[in-house]
Amino acid sequence: MGYPAHGSAVKVAIFTQRRFDAAKMQKINLFETEQFFIDVYCLEPGQAQKAHAHAGSDKVYAVMEGSVIARVDGQEQELRAGEMVLAPAGSEHGIENRSGVRAAVLVFMAPRP
Amino acid sequence: MGYPAHGSAVKVAIFTQRRFDAAKMQKINLFETEQFFIDVYCLEPGQAQKAHAHAGSDKVYAVMEGSVIARVDGQEQELRAGEMVLAPAGSEHGIENRSGVRAAVLVFMAPRP
Repeated sequence: MGYPAHGSAVKVAIFTQRRFDAAKMQKINLFETEQFFIDVYCLEPGQAQKAHAHAGSDKVYAVMEGSVIARVDGQEQELRAGEMVLAPAGSEHGIENRSGVRAAVLVFMAPRP
Repeated sequence: MGYPAHGSAVKVAIFTQRRFDAAKMQKINLFETEQFFIDVYCLEPGQAQKAHAHAGSDKVYAVMEGSVIARVDGQEQELRAGEMVLAPAGSEHGIENRSGVRAAVLVFMAPRP
C-alpha cells in the first residue's frame, strides 16, 4: 500500500492520499523500515488518537490539512496546516480533531516501536 | 530556528517555511533529536544535493512544492509534489531540480548521522 508501480525498484509513496472512516481515525502506512515509520492519519471531526507514550521513540505530527489539538505531556497546542510538533521519547502525546472539518496529519516516528 | 514562540514548552515548527539562495541549495532544520532530523531543502532550478550515502541511516525525500529528480542507487525517479521516495541505509542517493521552477522538499533521516 502506498507504493505505486513506477517500473523501477525505487520505493515511492503518495503522502496526499487519504482514507476517512466515520467509525475511527484511519492510519495509512507510507514507509516502514528498520529505523522508522511514516504514516498519514486521517481524522474526521471529533476523532482522536488517545494520549500514549513510547519509551525510546521520538514522534512528529505534521498537519497537512485542517487542524488538530496536539497534547504533549499535558500541554495542549493547536496545530494548523503547515505546523508540526515534536513528541519526545517518553512524553505522553496524542492528537484530536476538535474542528468542524477533516484533518490529515503526516506522522514520523523513529525508531519504530 | 523553526521554533516560533507559542508560550509553552511544546516544540512547534513550520514546514511551509522557505529560504532560497541563487548560490546553492538551502537546508532549513525543523527538528533534530537523538533519533532523527527533519529539514526543508529549498532548490532553485538547476540546484542539487549531490549523490552520497549513509551507512546506517534511512532517508525520505517528500516533495512539497515543484518537482525533483531523485537518484537512488543509480536509478532516477521523477517526484512531483505529494510524492516521497525512500533512500535506504547504504544506498547512494541525491536529488536535483531540473525543472524551471523552485522546489521544496521535506527530508526525514533516522538515525541522524
